[in-house]
Amino acid sequence: MAFSPLVDELVESLRCLPGVGQKTAQRMAFHLLERGREGGERLAGALEQAMSGVRRCDSCQNFADTELCPICQDVSRRNGTLCIVESPSDLLALEQAGDYQGGYFVLMGHLSPIDGIGPEEIGVERLLRRVQDENVTEIILATNPTVEGDATAHYIADRLADRPVLVTRLAHGIPVGGELGYVDGFTLGHAFRGRKPLAD
Amino acid sequence: MAFSPLVDELVESLRCLPGVGQKTAQRMAFHLLERGREGGERLAGALEQAMSGVRRCDSCQNFADTELCPICQDVSRRNGTLCIVESPSDLLALEQAGDYQGGYFVLMGHLSPIDGIGPEEIGVERLLRRVQDENVTEIILATNPTVEGDATAHYIADRLADRPVLVTRLAHGIPVGGELGYVDGFTLGHAFRGRKPLAD
Ligand SMILES: [Zn+2]
Ligand SMILES: [Zn+2]
Repeated sequence: MAFSPLVDELVESLRCLPGVGQKTAQRMAFHLLERGREGGERLAGALEQAMSGVRRCDSCQNFADTELCPICQDVSRRNGTLCIVESPSDLLALEQAGDYQGGYFVLMGHLSPIDGIGPEEIGVERLLRRVQDENVTEIILATNPTVEGDATAHYIADRLADRPVLVTRLAHGIPVGGELGYVDGFTLGHAFRGRKPLAD
Repeated sequence: MAFSPLVDELVESLRCLPGVGQKTAQRMAFHLLERGREGGERLAGALEQAMSGVRRCDSCQNFADTELCPICQDVSRRNGTLCIVESPSDLLALEQAGDYQGGYFVLMGHLSPIDGIGPEEIGVERLLRRVQDENVTEIILATNPTVEGDATAHYIADRLADRPVLVTRLAHGIPVGGELGYVDGFTLGHAFRGRKPLAD
């Protein structure tokens, strides 16, 4: 840039955000410099803290500030039910719907052999240990209703076939091909209540 | 959020960026945490540095790291010509077009009485002092071709009416109602060469 290496570096750095190209990064940088320095300083601090401080929960794999996330720390939610989701935003959508009171397991993705993401990468062994250790009686497969989400759900169901655990799948109300994080709470609640055992 | 105050704060902070709502902020935060921690750390540093270190150039009002920006420090560009633009991104677009070799004055906005932005806010007195002190012989009005940009250009032209300075306006090639920062370099070069004295 013609006028400021600091502005240059800010524009370049903003491009690490998803969906932000050169023009958008420039607009963001100028906006912060002109009218949002306080916000920019707050964001700098939040980024620094989060990038170094956020870890994965030892039990559910979700983002957490401590070894166990608040949900896993809550003994009232260890009721023998585990809901399997692909991502933290899916978990958030379900929590905001408010229908569900059990535990979670966050895969942080789905099976995708072409990208080198196998059972180990999404934590299937860890999940199977939890099913055993915590005497889980029901696994609710809430992966996204996509080809990859369905394949992941079926793989997990297969691995649980010889365990004394009911395997269910969120049922109807979820638009096919959609993403769980964008579904409204009413529809999610409906899908929870309408869940049914997974058929082969 | 159900699982991490640090993630909460990051999502909230990201909303200081223009055009970023709750869902987008969430997506950005998760992206950084999952696959972009290095980028996030770099952005944190760039923000901190820029928010505290970027000032306004004493001569042209543009963003700068030092008292005078590199363009104002460059004596070869003090050739008696000043190009008046509304914003740093307009200046950048003109620099990238590469046709112009004189100085700049960045208004950092345009006249907008309804928003309390008068001549003082955009630095008209400072501009008039420069015209006198630097023996400026031509002022090129490159404000945006919008109602506000035109009004600002005319106001400045009026204030220069009794000075021995040629006042020109970027001429044709710029789409009416458009923003300078989005015009391609070829068109900008054309508009520069086709500039003409401002008529009343
Ligand atoms: Zn957890
Ligand atoms: Zn300058």
